[in-house]
Amino acid sequence: MTEHTVTSYEDELKFIVRRISEMGGQAERMVEQAVAALMRSDWDLAQSVVADDVLLDAAQRDLDERAIRTIAKRQPMAVDLREIVGAIRISNDLERIGDLAKNIAKRVIAVHDHSQPVQLVRGIEHLSELALVQLKEVLDAYGEHDHLRAMAVRDNDEQIDAMYTSIFRELLTYMMEDPRNITACTHLLFSAKNIERIGDHATNIAETIYYIQTGEQMEAERPKGDTTPSLVQQGSNLPPAGPEG
Amino acid sequence: MTEHTVTSYEDELKFIVRRISEMGGQAERMVEQAVAALMRSDWDLAQSVVADDVLLDAAQRDLDERAIRTIAKRQPMAVDLREIVGAIRISNDLERIGDLAKNIAKRVIAVHDHSQPVQLVRGIEHLSELALVQLKEVLDAYGEHDHLRAMAVRDNDEQIDAMYTSIFRELLTYMMEDPRNITACTHLLFSAKNIERIGDHATNIAETIYYIQTGEQMEAERPKGDTTPSLVQQGSNLPPAGPEG
Repeated sequence: MTEHTVTSYEDELKFIVRRISEMGGQAERMVEQAVAALMRSDWDLAQSVVADDVLLDAAQRDLDERAIRTIAKRQPMAVDLREIVGAIRISNDLERIGDLAKNIAKRVIAVHDHSQPVQLVRGIEHLSELALVQLKEVLDAYGEHDHLRAMAVRDNDEQIDAMYTSIFRELLTYMMEDPRNITACTHLLFSAKNIERIGDHATNIAETIYYIQTGEQMEAERPKGDTTPSLVQQGSNLPPAGPEG
Repeated sequence: MTEHTVTSYEDELKFIVRRISEMGGQAERMVEQAVAALMRSDWDLAQSVVADDVLLDAAQRDLDERAIRTIAKRQPMAVDLREIVGAIRISNDLERIGDLAKNIAKRVIAVHDHSQPVQLVRGIEHLSELALVQLKEVLDAYGEHDHLRAMAVRDNDEQIDAMYTSIFRELLTYMMEDPRNITACTHLLFSAKNIERIGDHATNIAETIYYIQTGEQMEAERPKGDTTPSLVQQGSNLPPAGPEG
């Protein structure tokens, strides 16, 4: 990446926003490649994802320092300040999406050499597609300063949660049917959880976009499909139990 | 909590630092109570942890806004600016520790009514003790502006990773021995993972303290006990496979 000579506050802000877009593209690619590596048991691809995570971490640190320098030098107020603080938060979420992709990549070796039930692997692939759509949508909403689009991303997170819950139950059933599936399914379980959390980070980014644009926090209590019920239905006894947070 | 009339930059900073300490205490308590609830299958305690998380989330948002207002109003430079940006990052880590405690609490209902192997439950309790020591240490290091103590916290994270790896393997073995253990063990597996991640957040806080004090980032590449080997030892076939990220 070529260094940019920063001349005005406007330029610095544009530079930061562009960097976020680049980091977002990198995070998306890492998620795609990590899931592809898991599907195909592709060690080389998995290792390249692990290597890319180092770059994304460095990009986040660089963006942080640049944003802080800009705050110190330009002393922005109101929406300008929120834009920069928002960039710091979003780069944090993107870095963590990269970590989650790396975690999935690291499981490739662990899952290899174990039989993987095709429909479950498909399920995880489909879950990752949903998460990637969310990520793409929220990055577009960021680029377009569109907080309504960001709100829609948050609302869609329920779909990911619901599909994760269904995959969780299937994986447990599969483990119970044959103990030889346990090791592979455990790793698929954590991979599914990592993907579900990528969706949560897309939601966080959506909330940050809303905050940047409006100066308000989205109300905290989003209805969550997979969580509240289990603490309410104390008497119920669903086999197997839901996945939880 | 009574509102504090802020009169000077020094006062605002003190107020923010005190708030971080309060949030830290709250996060510690939530982790303790979540693990206690898991050990004793205590639904009421689990529900109070879930309720506390709403308060910690609100405290984080409040601290964020206060910190941003301070930056905008006081335009601090160098270490003062890092102190405030650091507080934003630390409150983010504390909020996430609260989320992880909440996740553990939510599993209490799922694990209940399933037989739990005593030695594994003890293992998780011990893992949480290690994580709580890390959290307490890093909060003390923050209060005392002691970046050397913070570095020690980061170095100790390896112990948590190693113990988590051992618990992971034991849980898998136990699941293989008897499929009726699978549901409970899966939830214990995720609980152990949540605790291991609490350790990671203590490490993040340690790195932020170092950054506040020195203006430098700790080098990114901490040797991690549980991760690199599995991508290197491609030919090995350890049963059961390591836990990964």
